[in-house]
Amino acid sequence: MSLRFSSRQAHREFVAAQAPLPRGFRAGATSLSFTSAESGKIAKMNISLIALDKPSPDFAGMFTRNAFPGAPVKVGRKRLAESVLSAIVVNNKVSNVATPTGIADAQAICDAVGKALGVDGNTVMPSSTGVIGWRLPTDQIIAGIPGAVASLQRDTIFPIAEAIMTTDLYPKVRSAQVGDGRIVAIAKGAGMIEPHLATMLVFILTDLQIPRDTLRAILPQAVDGSFNCLSVDSDTSTSDTVLAVSSGLVPCPDVAAFESALTAVCSALAGDVVRNGEGVHHVIRITVSNAPDRELARRLGRAVVNSPLVKTAVLGNDPNVGRIAAALGKQLGLDEAARSISTDRVRIAIGGQDVMVGGQFHLNGAIEKRLSALFKSAELYSSAPNAEGNFVPPIDYPPHEDTVDILVDLGSGTAECTVLGADLSHEYVTENADYRS
Amino acid sequence: MSLRFSSRQAHREFVAAQAPLPRGFRAGATSLSFTSAESGKIAKMNISLIALDKPSPDFAGMFTRNAFPGAPVKVGRKRLAESVLSAIVVNNKVSNVATPTGIADAQAICDAVGKALGVDGNTVMPSSTGVIGWRLPTDQIIAGIPGAVASLQRDTIFPIAEAIMTTDLYPKVRSAQVGDGRIVAIAKGAGMIEPHLATMLVFILTDLQIPRDTLRAILPQAVDGSFNCLSVDSDTSTSDTVLAVSSGLVPCPDVAAFESALTAVCSALAGDVVRNGEGVHHVIRITVSNAPDRELARRLGRAVVNSPLVKTAVLGNDPNVGRIAAALGKQLGLDEAARSISTDRVRIAIGGQDVMVGGQFHLNGAIEKRLSALFKSAELYSSAPNAEGNFVPPIDYPPHEDTVDILVDLGSGTAECTVLGADLSHEYVTENADYRS
Repeated sequence: MSLRFSSRQAHREFVAAQAPLPRGFRAGATSLSFTSAESGKIAKMNISLIALDKPSPDFAGMFTRNAFPGAPVKVGRKRLAESVLSAIVVNNKVSNVATPTGIADAQAICDAVGKALGVDGNTVMPSSTGVIGWRLPTDQIIAGIPGAVASLQRDTIFPIAEAIMTTDLYPKVRSAQVGDGRIVAIAKGAGMIEPHLATMLVFILTDLQIPRDTLRAILPQAVDGSFNCLSVDSDTSTSDTVLAVSSGLVPCPDVAAFESALTAVCSALAGDVVRNGEGVHHVIRITVSNAPDRELARRLGRAVVNSPLVKTAVLGNDPNVGRIAAALGKQLGLDEAARSISTDRVRIAIGGQDVMVGGQFHLNGAIEKRLSALFKSAELYSSAPNAEGNFVPPIDYPPHEDTVDILVDLGSGTAECTVLGADLSHEYVTENADYRS
Repeated sequence: MSLRFSSRQAHREFVAAQAPLPRGFRAGATSLSFTSAESGKIAKMNISLIALDKPSPDFAGMFTRNAFPGAPVKVGRKRLAESVLSAIVVNNKVSNVATPTGIADAQAICDAVGKALGVDGNTVMPSSTGVIGWRLPTDQIIAGIPGAVASLQRDTIFPIAEAIMTTDLYPKVRSAQVGDGRIVAIAKGAGMIEPHLATMLVFILTDLQIPRDTLRAILPQAVDGSFNCLSVDSDTSTSDTVLAVSSGLVPCPDVAAFESALTAVCSALAGDVVRNGEGVHHVIRITVSNAPDRELARRLGRAVVNSPLVKTAVLGNDPNVGRIAAALGKQLGLDEAARSISTDRVRIAIGGQDVMVGGQFHLNGAIEKRLSALFKSAELYSSAPNAEGNFVPPIDYPPHEDTVDILVDLGSGTAECTVLGADLSHEYVTENADYRS
């Protein structure tokens, strides 16, 4: 049974209950106003800070495969070689990508944080998200660091989960208990979301003692089955970052249990990210089963959830299964790894209802009505333009966690992958056609 | 200077002037009503017929690479082995894909056309476009064939260019003169448009004498530089077909001149298809130059024009160049063939204005204003929802042929490819979220 939330308050209480910090961490956030050098516009920026009581060697990171990574990603890759991590500093609003001073800006901010906390600036991880192309207001950020330090507290990561948001409608926090320790993870991201080997901004904190090498071996597996299996809009960000850090204060009773809990936290958070995707009315969960290999299954799942025609059909509660077959057939037709697959063995089911069997459609009016009702029941909200003709989501919490479930059984192997995607709505268009919203 | 049209009438006159049939062809269309077996809905269908005075051995065809090709595509591939082609029969509204009786339905229609024209049914090329998943109303189509035959005339292909439309707003016809002969081509297509090795429905007729083998060698080259370089929505149809046929009545003075004219006709028609794409406000023309190879340049161009965030930014006349770099960087980061490319050499220009040089953004308020005005000037129309909250294009002709021109100079080779794409609008969402519109 999927979670259901009757109000914004009920959802915030759920998030707050996930948010207590593990032992050994402090967190805080502050905000500032600045004028963009590129647009001349005044904008608001949040500065978030997470600090370890004691610098820890046990941390792991994964970053975007985009060929234009942000300066914080470039700096972050270097930080992985450092012996310890002391703190994480995050700004929203400007992503610090491909500007002449980007790396120096990121380093200067780390150095300022290091100075304020009494640690080496090279042990501070920088992270930025927001408009691509603008320079960071570095002087103003540095001037804001003392305020961020003053806001540090040990209770909850909730304020950070809110402060790192850009177009997100609500904060995303998930946690798990393992023995006497905890894993707490937060995510930012609503658009430009199709992670490849990493994702949006995700920060995972734990007090469970997991050695650096173990953490670096486990994290990619947890990410592979969660963040690397989702797509809001097929766009891969220049800033995608997943960072996991352990304070090591609680002995880990069982590494396998930790891995399993980490995977569950990542999967739940990945679901949150899609559910909160820009303009998302329906979350689509497609499982491609009996495939020759898992990577092909992932590509086929992505091809279906990224098809604009599948997305808009789902938006309209229209079980237009022809579009699902067309999107699948496009990828099958182009993908070298799909050569061995005979479409005569393909079965497609939606919500348990077969719609294609043995490569032939299996449809009638009664089936279509049933599927349309099923799509409608999985809708997060329906919408209408406001007086200005703009579409704005009428909710800022997820009323439920239902999904539109599609099964594609290729009948040509034993591998499987489940991909999460979303529909494409007027709200997405309105949000992204607004001038540098 | 791009073409400009002041009214629907002016555009129709332009199209009609392109439409006179080459010698040796007749064309006609009729329509019928039917009840869909799958949805129970009553729908209207057009049946179009093109007949050669004398069956011709000189024809060439290319078809979709989608792994679920329509039955007419499967039958059409067989027709390429026939010694001659006598006629083409096309229906809109239902695409005849993956139904148990699909191939038999297509053959029965060809046989009925053959009987009515006094030719072998195996020399008739079938073609269908429309909803995927529905069965053809074969009996009603066969009953309509005599009406289609009665409508055949020698003057113009204009009625067929209209009759094959589905969500197209206006008919698409282009022509060229070579010596004493002509090439006339029509296209249908507005959505599910990202051809791979073929395209939408395109029928190219000529009276110029081009031997079968020559035509089959030339057609793929013309298609490669035109239809295979466009994408409206990244979806590849199950019915894509390009068919070229010569009546052979006029000696061809120069095969090179024919090839050049054919390429020009295909390119102009490809432009028409994108310009008339579902909900398109802006046509985006991206040239990726100085690339290691042409196929990589094509993939990079497609990655940019298919990015929902680039599309929506262009819709909003927002020169959000960060999104262009992000989309480019996604493909560069994932594409094996891009490994040798250093982003330090990448230059991006929009409408001749540099926005990235040496891999670094080059932006300020004045540049952004200039680009925003340029996007606005290339807009086909702006829009607002109607009283029901639906977005319907306010025009049914293309007022101009201006484009948003993006240059990506990779500085890493000598190959080049130009890709046509489009923005993503409320009209696209409204059109495709409607229940089986």
